[in-house]
Amino acid sequence: MGTNQHAFKVVADGSITTPKGYKAGGLHCGLKKTDRHDLGAIVSEVPAVAAGVYTLNAFQAAPIRVTRDSIESDGLLSAVIVNSGNANAVTGKQGEADAYEMRSLFAEKIGVPAAHVAVASTGVIGELLKMDKVRDGISRLPEKLDASEAGADGFCQAILTTDLVKKSVCVAVEVKGQTVHIAGASKGSGMIHPNMATMLGFMTTDANIGADALQQLLRRATDLTFNMITVDGDTSTNDMLVAMANGLAGNEQLSPAHPDWAAFEAAFVYVCEVLAKAIARDGEGATKLVEVQIRGAESDEAARAIAKTVIGSSLVKSAMFGADANWGRIIAAVGRSGQQVNVDTVDVRIGDIVTLEQSRPVAFDEEAALAYLKGDTVVVIVDLHMGGSSATAWGCDLTYDYVRINAAYRT
Amino acid sequence: MGTNQHAFKVVADGSITTPKGYKAGGLHCGLKKTDRHDLGAIVSEVPAVAAGVYTLNAFQAAPIRVTRDSIESDGLLSAVIVNSGNANAVTGKQGEADAYEMRSLFAEKIGVPAAHVAVASTGVIGELLKMDKVRDGISRLPEKLDASEAGADGFCQAILTTDLVKKSVCVAVEVKGQTVHIAGASKGSGMIHPNMATMLGFMTTDANIGADALQQLLRRATDLTFNMITVDGDTSTNDMLVAMANGLAGNEQLSPAHPDWAAFEAAFVYVCEVLAKAIARDGEGATKLVEVQIRGAESDEAARAIAKTVIGSSLVKSAMFGADANWGRIIAAVGRSGQQVNVDTVDVRIGDIVTLEQSRPVAFDEEAALAYLKGDTVVVIVDLHMGGSSATAWGCDLTYDYVRINAAYRT
Repeated sequence: MGTNQHAFKVVADGSITTPKGYKAGGLHCGLKKTDRHDLGAIVSEVPAVAAGVYTLNAFQAAPIRVTRDSIESDGLLSAVIVNSGNANAVTGKQGEADAYEMRSLFAEKIGVPAAHVAVASTGVIGELLKMDKVRDGISRLPEKLDASEAGADGFCQAILTTDLVKKSVCVAVEVKGQTVHIAGASKGSGMIHPNMATMLGFMTTDANIGADALQQLLRRATDLTFNMITVDGDTSTNDMLVAMANGLAGNEQLSPAHPDWAAFEAAFVYVCEVLAKAIARDGEGATKLVEVQIRGAESDEAARAIAKTVIGSSLVKSAMFGADANWGRIIAAVGRSGQQVNVDTVDVRIGDIVTLEQSRPVAFDEEAALAYLKGDTVVVIVDLHMGGSSATAWGCDLTYDYVRINAAYRT
Repeated sequence: MGTNQHAFKVVADGSITTPKGYKAGGLHCGLKKTDRHDLGAIVSEVPAVAAGVYTLNAFQAAPIRVTRDSIESDGLLSAVIVNSGNANAVTGKQGEADAYEMRSLFAEKIGVPAAHVAVASTGVIGELLKMDKVRDGISRLPEKLDASEAGADGFCQAILTTDLVKKSVCVAVEVKGQTVHIAGASKGSGMIHPNMATMLGFMTTDANIGADALQQLLRRATDLTFNMITVDGDTSTNDMLVAMANGLAGNEQLSPAHPDWAAFEAAFVYVCEVLAKAIARDGEGATKLVEVQIRGAESDEAARAIAKTVIGSSLVKSAMFGADANWGRIIAAVGRSGQQVNVDTVDVRIGDIVTLEQSRPVAFDEEAALAYLKGDTVVVIVDLHMGGSSATAWGCDLTYDYVRINAAYRT
């Protein structure tokens, strides 16, 4: 276990089944052409308080509507079922009927009300689900569910598309002396952009927490983490982040007024940040994680907008791939962000290397810069010296492989 | 000569020196590492009414400030001088002094007031101009100027950076029986995005036209053409489009009230559109021109915003490179444009191939789609069936070569 200043601990081998009362699993039902897992579920042994945030894309996929329907019915979820290989998006009435059938079939199978099941899908847009394969998969899914590491692993595999690695994290935090766990799993690699991108995220916690507090916390954490990553500027039809809190830790109910709220919030945001950064690092074709910190901005909104503009710049991303300390592209992106900038007071650092100070180029050690930029994580820090606000955004480099992956995805 | 419905003619071998009274030329002074031209100028034998539009990037390069200063002094220009290989951007007081020195040295050389000379630069950001080379180049430049095709060609070469082709066009239009020529040359390949990208454009005309009419026409034409192209979403510090009208055609002065205004306007916009499309087609690494037409939108603003979102999508651009009729990415981009969309009434055509009708996928001939998408121009038409507004945007595909070019540009 690692520790940090926020009084929570990272559980080294933790997963979405580490919090009490959760099982998970996955299997291959035939939606993917390869034999990789493409159907998975998380199940809580008791109904969990639930919260969700969804894509802002006008073309919301059918499972988004079904999950929203479930969470809005009585605020509780017992399970989420997820398929990859097909997004069930732009599939009309039949797609909606299919998503509702996934929900009811799985609910019946595990003996819970249909409205206590959320549905998520990711994959190709505009094709109907092969429901014979989905039905067969759902019939076999319950036997795959277990509370071990293997169950969580199976689920994490089942939600991947072009992702190269599974993304999962678990932390432990004390609430009035009671240990509470918060865990999450996510997927996302392309079509990633602030405001919920092609990403799915699922969080489990055994904390006892009020529904409103959970929804507000999920939204705040999303704004600080998932909404600050970008891979390619495209926002998907299927993005969804769902949190379940089943209360089995037995802690005193959490709300913003609770003395341990700050610790719980920090732990919750940390889980989201780890998952979001893992998505950015695993961006399609990416060779490195890029972090952009904007400091000294006039407002949080300005800091966020500038950070997102820099992290989303194709020219900055290409320079990162080429290990090129091209600060000119960084400030060109700052300059087109639409935010007020004092063009005479900007500092730019790449790692520890100062390249621009008070908007004046600084001679730097190109060899050292090259060595730093060849690493697997690059931090860019822009200080505007205009105010006290800051923001951080995460992304990745733009590579040949991004083009290769996306030039041939559908075929 | 070709003709079209707008009553103007394209001059087949025309160039920026076809309008009466203009000379142009270029040479290699040493700002580029290769021996390609990197300094050029256009000179009018009499002061020309002038208009300019400039980058909206907060970090405006020094030459932008100098050109604005020149045009705002008395609205006249006798010449523009342009260098490539160095953007003279983020170069502080010295950069500004250098741009003013370029202006005064060349003005003196050709015997005109300094305020009648515009300056433009394009290339690497954040490095001071090698003024010894610029001074030497300016001393030799006048002897390169001539009114022939060769002079125009030398200028067109001198303004290129990563461009692969020269971009130039000339049209002829009748104004009360008098032939007037309008010509333009442009450069731009990367850092291209709506709202004036890394592009330079220079228009010459021998028309007699009022200064206000020219400025308004330039702005309107820019909105319809240069501001509707994107290569990579990045907007440069140096963008500039300057038009000079020297009146030597001897026509009755043009203004919007003139009976031939519509024909002149159409010809002027056409010149801008040809230059803008040429920049899009020559986008860094591009293998094809992509045109996105949005129809049936609720407003011009909505149509423009949606067109720009689709043309700017990295996923759409990658699919175009892969000749993949991936309409799902097209509508995902429409859906994240931030504009109101009726998600049940959208048609998508790729060339003549209908892929989505009333938001329902249409089975189409994949072979025919592949053959069409392998061509050098792809037209995507999205009809929203919501209103009567439309817009067109131009861009290019995203390719391995874009990444290669930009991963190694500075080094």
